[in-house]
Amino acid sequence: MSNLHKILDEKLVRVGVLGATGTVGQRFISLLSNHPWFIIHALGASPRSAGKPYAKATNWKQTTPIPSNVREIIVQECKPEHFSDCAIVFSGLDADVAGDIEGAFRAADLAVFSNAKNYRRDPLVPLIVPLVNDSHLSMIPQQQALHQPPLQKGFILTNANCSTTGLVVPLRALEKSFGPVEACFVTTMQAISGAGYPGVSALDIVDNVVPYIGGEEEKMEWETLKILGGIAEEDGKKAFDMHSRYPLRVSASCNRVPVIDGHTMTVSVRFARRPPPSPQQVREALVAYTPEAQSMGCPSAPVHAVFVHEEPDRPQPRLDRYYQDGAGVSVGRVRQCAVLDIKFVVLANNVSIGAATSSIINAELAVLKGVVKLPIM
Amino acid sequence: MSNLHKILDEKLVRVGVLGATGTVGQRFISLLSNHPWFIIHALGASPRSAGKPYAKATNWKQTTPIPSNVREIIVQECKPEHFSDCAIVFSGLDADVAGDIEGAFRAADLAVFSNAKNYRRDPLVPLIVPLVNDSHLSMIPQQQALHQPPLQKGFILTNANCSTTGLVVPLRALEKSFGPVEACFVTTMQAISGAGYPGVSALDIVDNVVPYIGGEEEKMEWETLKILGGIAEEDGKKAFDMHSRYPLRVSASCNRVPVIDGHTMTVSVRFARRPPPSPQQVREALVAYTPEAQSMGCPSAPVHAVFVHEEPDRPQPRLDRYYQDGAGVSVGRVRQCAVLDIKFVVLANNVSIGAATSSIINAELAVLKGVVKLPIM
Amino acid sequence: MSNLHKILDEKLVRVGVLGATGTVGQRFISLLSNHPWFIIHALGASPRSAGKPYAKATNWKQTTPIPSNVREIIVQECKPEHFSDCAIVFSGLDADVAGDIEGAFRAADLAVFSNAKNYRRDPLVPLIVPLVNDSHLSMIPQQQALHQPPLQKGFILTNANCSTTGLVVPLRALEKSFGPVEACFVTTMQAISGAGYPGVSALDIVDNVVPYIGGEEEKMEWETLKILGGIAEEDGKKAFDMHSRYPLRVSASCNRVPVIDGHTMTVSVRFARRPPPSPQQVREALVAYTPEAQSMGCPSAPVHAVFVHEEPDRPQPRLDRYYQDGAGVSVGRVRQCAVLDIKFVVLANNVSIGAATSSIINAELAVLKGVVKLPIM
Amino acid sequence: MSNLHKILDEKLVRVGVLGATGTVGQRFISLLSNHPWFIIHALGASPRSAGKPYAKATNWKQTTPIPSNVREIIVQECKPEHFSDCAIVFSGLDADVAGDIEGAFRAADLAVFSNAKNYRRDPLVPLIVPLVNDSHLSMIPQQQALHQPPLQKGFILTNANCSTTGLVVPLRALEKSFGPVEACFVTTMQAISGAGYPGVSALDIVDNVVPYIGGEEEKMEWETLKILGGIAEEDGKKAFDMHSRYPLRVSASCNRVPVIDGHTMTVSVRFARRPPPSPQQVREALVAYTPEAQSMGCPSAPVHAVFVHEEPDRPQPRLDRYYQDGAGVSVGRVRQCAVLDIKFVVLANNVSIGAATSSIINAELAVLKGVVKLPIM
Repeated sequence: MSNLHKILDEKLVRVGVLGATGTVGQRFISLLSNHPWFIIHALGASPRSAGKPYAKATNWKQTTPIPSNVREIIVQECKPEHFSDCAIVFSGLDADVAGDIEGAFRAADLAVFSNAKNYRRDPLVPLIVPLVNDSHLSMIPQQQALHQPPLQKGFILTNANCSTTGLVVPLRALEKSFGPVEACFVTTMQAISGAGYPGVSALDIVDNVVPYIGGEEEKMEWETLKILGGIAEEDGKKAFDMHSRYPLRVSASCNRVPVIDGHTMTVSVRFARRPPPSPQQVREALVAYTPEAQSMGCPSAPVHAVFVHEEPDRPQPRLDRYYQDGAGVSVGRVRQCAVLDIKFVVLANNVSIGAATSSIINAELAVLKGVVKLPIM
Repeated sequence: MSNLHKILDEKLVRVGVLGATGTVGQRFISLLSNHPWFIIHALGASPRSAGKPYAKATNWKQTTPIPSNVREIIVQECKPEHFSDCAIVFSGLDADVAGDIEGAFRAADLAVFSNAKNYRRDPLVPLIVPLVNDSHLSMIPQQQALHQPPLQKGFILTNANCSTTGLVVPLRALEKSFGPVEACFVTTMQAISGAGYPGVSALDIVDNVVPYIGGEEEKMEWETLKILGGIAEEDGKKAFDMHSRYPLRVSASCNRVPVIDGHTMTVSVRFARRPPPSPQQVREALVAYTPEAQSMGCPSAPVHAVFVHEEPDRPQPRLDRYYQDGAGVSVGRVRQCAVLDIKFVVLANNVSIGAATSSIINAELAVLKGVVKLPIM
Repeated sequence: MSNLHKILDEKLVRVGVLGATGTVGQRFISLLSNHPWFIIHALGASPRSAGKPYAKATNWKQTTPIPSNVREIIVQECKPEHFSDCAIVFSGLDADVAGDIEGAFRAADLAVFSNAKNYRRDPLVPLIVPLVNDSHLSMIPQQQALHQPPLQKGFILTNANCSTTGLVVPLRALEKSFGPVEACFVTTMQAISGAGYPGVSALDIVDNVVPYIGGEEEKMEWETLKILGGIAEEDGKKAFDMHSRYPLRVSASCNRVPVIDGHTMTVSVRFARRPPPSPQQVREALVAYTPEAQSMGCPSAPVHAVFVHEEPDRPQPRLDRYYQDGAGVSVGRVRQCAVLDIKFVVLANNVSIGAATSSIINAELAVLKGVVKLPIM
Repeated sequence: MSNLHKILDEKLVRVGVLGATGTVGQRFISLLSNHPWFIIHALGASPRSAGKPYAKATNWKQTTPIPSNVREIIVQECKPEHFSDCAIVFSGLDADVAGDIEGAFRAADLAVFSNAKNYRRDPLVPLIVPLVNDSHLSMIPQQQALHQPPLQKGFILTNANCSTTGLVVPLRALEKSFGPVEACFVTTMQAISGAGYPGVSALDIVDNVVPYIGGEEEKMEWETLKILGGIAEEDGKKAFDMHSRYPLRVSASCNRVPVIDGHTMTVSVRFARRPPPSPQQVREALVAYTPEAQSMGCPSAPVHAVFVHEEPDRPQPRLDRYYQDGAGVSVGRVRQCAVLDIKFVVLANNVSIGAATSSIINAELAVLKGVVKLPIM
């Protein structure tokens, strides 16, 4: 372990970013440029961008300038041979290309941490929200063993949809304290950055709400089960149990609103346990929740996994989305629900904990748990 | 009846507007200036405005110019003596003054149709959404009889909160076809105009969602019961039954979003009847719903009480709020709910059917049903 | 003339719309569906849309429903043979295809009224803002005569960029009363609808200003000269004089702001005449301005070509853009300028007078002046 | 000087904040809570807030939490006796109370750095934009000497209106390189935070532009002269010369746009010198500009007083307003102007360099130049 920490402290873990010129890729680069362990070694994008220095290849849309140590890195095509020195490859690829490219990287024995949706439903690929279910890392050896040919270091690990992420963090905290949740109603008010760039047309969203985001409700209803569920083992074969021992019904209604960053949600839950916990007990359980990412010392983990607001009108995306660099989840207005048991408001920064930050903490956890094999140096 | 229609056709029904310079008052004036039956006879506002021509007294914020036949009307103080010739008095007063003034007008035997919340919980005052429960007009004679001294023509009739209105119209249509609803979950995304002027600070809502509107959730949960409930009679005394024969649990989560006009809501319902209706049956019931305001020929009633959208991404406030001058309610995305039975999206124009238009249709119904006593001419 | 008016009153003028499924095309259709003279006869769009009923082919984004008399019209490809019965063809085509298609339509002897920029700089094609320079219709016979082979009825006539239109209407009114303007400074704050659909990404404009619109400043500076200039004649050959007898320097700074419809501009002008007119004289001249579109009775012309606001904080796009259906131009805050002579604020509805409405009034003028040859019926 | 730096390094300079619960006050507190030299010692607000811990007294609207070292400070009334230990008093008071309170603090021999407009036109009070005219600090001794009774340490120093600040920084840079500017045309697109809280109603600005801000144009036109002008001396009496040796005409058109923070401006200038500098020369002069706040080592001064963007569509408020914590000014699109000489776009963060940050750098300069008398410790 001391050898591991020496490697980390010397910042010797080389990482690559796929889809580096896109919205998620830019966010990865912003976060990784100051990372205490990881150093950006390779950037991949479309053939159109390949061969150019990063500063020329990207249409930078972040509110901080391009990190100076990244400006001159030459962008590569997304081919494994350009990333063979990378212990970790982060993928911000669009879904239309992510399937093939991420598959090829895994086949080349590379460890891929993906934001894309393509492998989320794969029965061997963990879908990990780092404040929730890093225990699912235990599925990686089986993924490697069943690959043809078997892999030594390579795997694919996905993180969840941005809206799912905001939901499952408080749900996990509640289940840990009070046992299974059996029903959950969620209405989202999602930021436009969740659709990427150019994404949502201004004509569709200024002075408007769009009460539909294609595929989003299905993702929230399904991903929640995979993430909050456990891992069943039968005949030596592991499988995600989809919360099946305690069936959980999730009903999601997803809306786009004119907010730049930060998904706000109204959530109502029913617990299996009767009587259910009181609002005050729920508040205390949320505050007390400490995921492994914190206790193991992941540098990108937030101090408060769930920050509970006491003011009646918070959280609000404009005021609260950048708290803790958006790495935690904010909850407010915990109160009785007349239909289910308890209702509350959730805010999650879709471009941080809802995207790149999740992948990075996942990678930190995978390094600390030895799932990522670091080169001996 | 033919005499009634003669009076109406000759536009001889004089009406007054209280709170004429405010947001709701301006909307009343826009709508009434072209009304086929009613003619604006008197305008009331604060002492600060009294004595001035309306065009000087108001800070007009509508997107159409001040009606030319109103510009020069001298604004009066809100005292009954200035409105004694009015068969109908519409009130757009703020809650902090509406209680006393509306009470004084009723005591002066004037018929008051109020947008304010002050009398909504009064056990003798109907709370009427005109596309839903105009049957509650039957409570007026008792209100008049129990007044000290008893009234001949005067009464107070309220319409509902703007967000409640959008909810109860489709709920009423569903109950009519499928029997009682026993649970309802609603999350609102409410327009800033719902808070009046100046109302919401731009710093609070640009690029933001505020997940709290003081008192709004309680109003929605309570008003829905009064409106959808019936009238019980015992010992000759009538009372609102608050949907008590079939208890209805309503859970509301109210949010402010950066939209000028139009409240959007996600709604989920559970029916008492098992099995519940299918989404297609719900759609058909909504389309078929024909309230009395339509069948009796109220001129301000919409052609479609509930307009059902088939496109997956509608209704949207910016595109659909002005359809039918905002007098109907739009519903879309009718589909199964994994927690309750059926879920859908509702859009209601808070400044039209959610406010002034409701009062005006209520007045039209009250005229046609003889509840408003017109002067013999 | 009485025969002409008979044809018009019987609504026998068949018109076509090119680019019918796009933003400008939808606006043409909304306006033309109620036109007193014109009847929509043919709709053209891309091959992808051709063959479908209009209601299926378009992604309708207007705030009023698709006109019922248009829903079932089968969309055609943009080929002249499908429009041979049309006396007038309106074009809302994108610039990347407008050049070839409009040229082909003219060659087929069809009269084309175009919103596209392609032919605006053509020395034989008039660039007409209908409240300003319909005298330039006199260039049409020469355009027809010089065509190979010469044309009987066909021609191309363009209207101006949406931002130019807002500027030249008041400038023309001022030049008419006070003689040449010799310098003009204009800063625009342009609506997002000016960029079409999907056009501006919401991520680029929510809570933002973009101080650049590609090519827009050059268009404003150049088009203004062509529109406000006269027609010089030498050796029997006519040519646009580009305001050359009184050189006019225009400096434009163009910005995109988060407004759906309506371009707002701050304008400052210097007159050649010394001393310059006073602000009050300018106000009066603007109010008095009566273009030929009004005096000849064009049905789509506004009552007030220039509406002058007296309130200190008007015009505002949200409140004033739909006044007169957006067919006029609003001016406010006329006052001294410390650098030039007079400054003021202009608001023009970019989707009405700035686009489709201009083309339609141009067509009305061309019909009344006999430039469009109507079939004998 | 070494003694001074010892005092500064030990963070022994006690400061107070007046109007601490307001928008500007909150910004002062955010900035001062991490200041390397200054320590918050006293907070003043209205009698309604006095006596409460700061966290209870304020409705905190910043995007970072209340600094922990300020939460428990008890708010005082704005009376000099509560601030007698403060070497510096920052004022974020509203104009309706700032005149009396700031006057009383000066009379109590306290050094007041004010954001309010009340004393800006006082012939003895400097109006200082710290990146521009800190030379005007030389007026302080005369202000102290002429006070009745004369003051030892007390004075009032104001900073400029937020929109003026953005204008004068590049103008000063240009005058330094190219000599007097003789005409300047500026159109502003100002953020809503410039109006304080609650300030602008959302109904007035969502999907809108308001082409008027009361008094703003006059302030820009007048303050620019005082700031860019020199100090004339006659008979031993100093006076601001208002740029009178080279008369400067400024014409401002001020607009409010739906942007949270950051004033964008289009600026055009004419130089006295003929021929004028080229755009490239202007760019270089802006980049090279180094005000005294930088060369003397003020800790809150930006690295780039003027940051010049090369991209055609920058600066933009949402992307660039927080660069250098908003302490510098961004300029882009430097190009020829067809009416004057050179035009460009300016962005200044109205809540940073346009408000609290200016006052703090002014205080830093005043400390370094010995204008603020620090207690011997």
